[in-house]
This record gives sequence, C-alpha cells and structure tokens, in this order.
Amino acid sequence: MPNPTACIIVIGNEILSGRTQDANVQFLATRLGLLGIGLREVRVIPDIRATIIDTVNELRARFDHVFTTGGIGPTHDDITSPCIAEAFGVPWEPHEASMQALGALFPEGGFNAARQRMATLPRGAVPIENSVSVAPGFSIGNVHVMAGVPRIMRAMFESLEPRLGRGQPVRSTAVHAERLSEGALADGLERIQDAHPQLDVGSYPYERPDGRRGVALVAKGTDVQALGAAHDAIVALIAALDRVPVEGEPPP
Amino acid sequence: MPNPTACIIVIGNEILSGRTQDANVQFLATRLGLLGIGLREVRVIPDIRATIIDTVNELRARFDHVFTTGGIGPTHDDITSPCIAEAFGVPWEPHEASMQALGALFPEGGFNAARQRMATLPRGAVPIENSVSVAPGFSIGNVHVMAGVPRIMRAMFESLEPRLGRGQPVRSTAVHAERLSEGALADGLERIQDAHPQLDVGSYPYERPDGRRGVALVAKGTDVQALGAAHDAIVALIAALDRVPVEGEPPP
Repeated sequence: MPNPTACIIVIGNEILSGRTQDANVQFLATRLGLLGIGLREVRVIPDIRATIIDTVNELRARFDHVFTTGGIGPTHDDITSPCIAEAFGVPWEPHEASMQALGALFPEGGFNAARQRMATLPRGAVPIENSVSVAPGFSIGNVHVMAGVPRIMRAMFESLEPRLGRGQPVRSTAVHAERLSEGALADGLERIQDAHPQLDVGSYPYERPDGRRGVALVAKGTDVQALGAAHDAIVALIAALDRVPVEGEPPP
Repeated sequence: MPNPTACIIVIGNEILSGRTQDANVQFLATRLGLLGIGLREVRVIPDIRATIIDTVNELRARFDHVFTTGGIGPTHDDITSPCIAEAFGVPWEPHEASMQALGALFPEGGFNAARQRMATLPRGAVPIENSVSVAPGFSIGNVHVMAGVPRIMRAMFESLEPRLGRGQPVRSTAVHAERLSEGALADGLERIQDAHPQLDVGSYPYERPDGRRGVALVAKGTDVQALGAAHDAIVALIAALDRVPVEGEPPP
C-alpha cells in the first residue's frame, strides 16, 4: 500500500510580506517523513476568507491529510477556524470543554469575546491539545488546524501525532565530498537513480562558513535494501571522480 | 492602478522532505514588497514533470509575475527548464550566447552534456544573468526561472530586478511592547484595522532568547498618511493597556 499523502497550508500575510521566516514547514516535513506520511505540496496563502475556504476544499480532496498553520489566535485577522467551518459547511460554535479550560486561565471578566473565539470550533471538530497556551487546535475530517507560533505548533503536533495513520518510514542516506562538481557527477548519479527508481536520489551543493564547497548526495525512500545499494554506488561514484567520500550530511 | 501581483513556485523534493530549509521566499517577499509587487501565494512542489507544468500554467494565468526557484542545475532531477518549455509549448533548445559563456568556463572536454543542459533554454526565453556561477536563469512571458541555491538566486534577482515593472512600494510601521497579550488588544486592534481598510494590520507574539515575551503590532500598506495614523493609534492602544510602546520590531 502506498504511503499516505499530505500537504501543508501556511495561512498568514506575515510570510507573504517577508516579515516572518516560516519555521514550521521543515519541522512538519521531517516529522511526517518519520511517520511515513509523504508531504507532497505546501501552499502559503493570505488571510483572505475565500482563498482559505477554496484552498482547503481543493486540497482536502487531493491529499490524505491537510495540515494548516496560522490564523487561530484571538485577533481580527485570525480567521482560519470560521473559514474551516464554512469549508465543511458546518456551524462555528462554542466548544464547551475548550471554553471551560481556556476560561479558567483568566481572572473574572478577562475571558473576553476575542479570547472566546479561540474556544469556538467547527461543529464536530476534535480538539488538538495545546500544552503551551491551552487554546486548542483541532481536526475535522482529514484537516488538522494548528497554530502558527512554532513552539505552539510543535506542541500541538506532539498531541496530534498518535492519531495520525502511518506508512512505511522514509529513510535516507547521505554522503558528501569537497571540491565535487554537480556537472561532473550528473551522469553517474542519473545511472544510480535509474537503477533504483523506488528511491529519490538528489545532489545538493553546499558552501560552509569557512568557504569550503562541495556537494551532498542524498538518497531517500522506504526500501532499506535499495538505500544500502544506492549508498555504496554513491561512494564509488565519488571515489571514481578522485574525491573523498564522507558519510552523512556536511556539518553546518 | 492596483499593484502588480506575484507568486513563487519553489520546486524541489528537498524542501518537501525536510532536508532543506527554504531561504528564498523571505528574501523575494521582502524585495518584491519594496518594488510594490504584491506576493500573493507560494507553492512548494516536487520535481515531477506534470506537477511543474500544470502549476506553472495555472499560476501564470492568475498572477502578473511567477517566480520559480530550483531545478535548473545539471543533474537528472533538474527538470524545471524543459518543463517550462513544455508549459509554454515551445522547443527546449541550445541558447547560443549562454552555451559560449558557460562553455568558456571548462577545459576541453569538460563542457559535457549535463553542463550543456544549463545553457539549454525554452525558445524565446531571455536569460537572467548569474554573476556567481554563469549558468543563467531566464524569463519567458511572465515567468522568471531562478536557481534554488540562495546565493545564486539572489544574484539572479539583482539582474532581473530592473526588468520588472513596479507598483507603489509597500511600507510598514511596527511597534512592540513586552507583557502585552493579544487577547487584551484584539478589540482595539480590530478598530484600527476597520478605520484603515487600505492597510494590513497584524499582531505577532514574540519570545526573546532571554524569555521575555511580548507582541509586535505591524501595519503595512502603500498609503503613507494612513500608516502614520495607524501607528499613532497603535501607540495609544498599547499605552491604554498600561504597557510601554517601543518603536520598531523587537530585537532578535
């Protein structure tokens, strides 16, 4: 059975304006890979109602899982939750247990309308626990709605993870070498890719802070035996080019 | 006249696998904002021929500019350039001037078939100069094809920039304050947004390395007068909540 598929929708003007560097995609990509869930697409979209609804409806039909980040705080531009309700055609309504848990954080009168929005969920949604700041994410159907603040998103993913289905974990093997050129190794690398069509074989030039340059050769896939064979072929390819193969990714 | 619109297509399995942290979107978003070109969407897609072609054709019809990063090197997984040719329905063929410039870098016999692919462009494409490693990007129609390696992408963008149309530059104003809570300021901030619908007003919680937390309030737009008024209203809002407004974004 093929691995489940996923996409991420990053919701937030602050990424599109350049104000904020996204820090969630790499975390989710890595963790999903370990679960054997293949991340196939990422979209970054603005805080616009119609765009959110249309994008969610398009992508939840195409992928096994849709993860969203951003737009579930208390302010006027936090519109992800009501948009998800609209995408699913269900009411957006107070979630009793979340109202009680979140309300307990504030002194009398402090649990205002803005804060209550964070405990208002699409009908039928299952909350995703937030061990950092209580206000929950939620899952509805195959859509998992999480915060944009990286620390909170990670806590939510930890809560959500046991509920996600799993596939075959994606493993990888990496070898790097200095003074290697992609143009010199391209033919040999293509032969390795062709010999192992079930793997994803790639080459990634790097430059270290001290100016030393090289290329990392990476194979990824679920077939451990093929990974071993590809690894050995990559080592031999580098050696045939009179360079020194070093195990693993280059140090940062 | 409204500002021109843009999207970015990040082409590369390495982003979707979590191997590589994207470093191009924030750079492009910021630079496009300064040119008055509004970045409306980002997609990260894998190195799959049909996906690249379909995505390019969908998005070049929807936005004034499409910027792609990644997939124009010499290896087997660098398929962006022939895919763009196919998306535009034109031949992918040697580009004479680029062949000469790139070929001059290598000793006899070194300008192999893999390297020649980097000087093979869709017919009618205009090269984008690469001051780092010579192999060009290119523009065809409203699609601008650039490298994925950040240093090379930036050099290409510098070459391309004078050819791009411009809009009204997007400016921003930021004020931050410690011990501020989004839930406490949400109502007041929404009133500021409502008073200036031509701006984009947002709030961004932060936590500094020493553990101090707060919220940054940011307004963005092309209307300088409205930005000044929003700035003053934000300062007054923070003061009314008994917090100390500090100009600018919080230090990193």
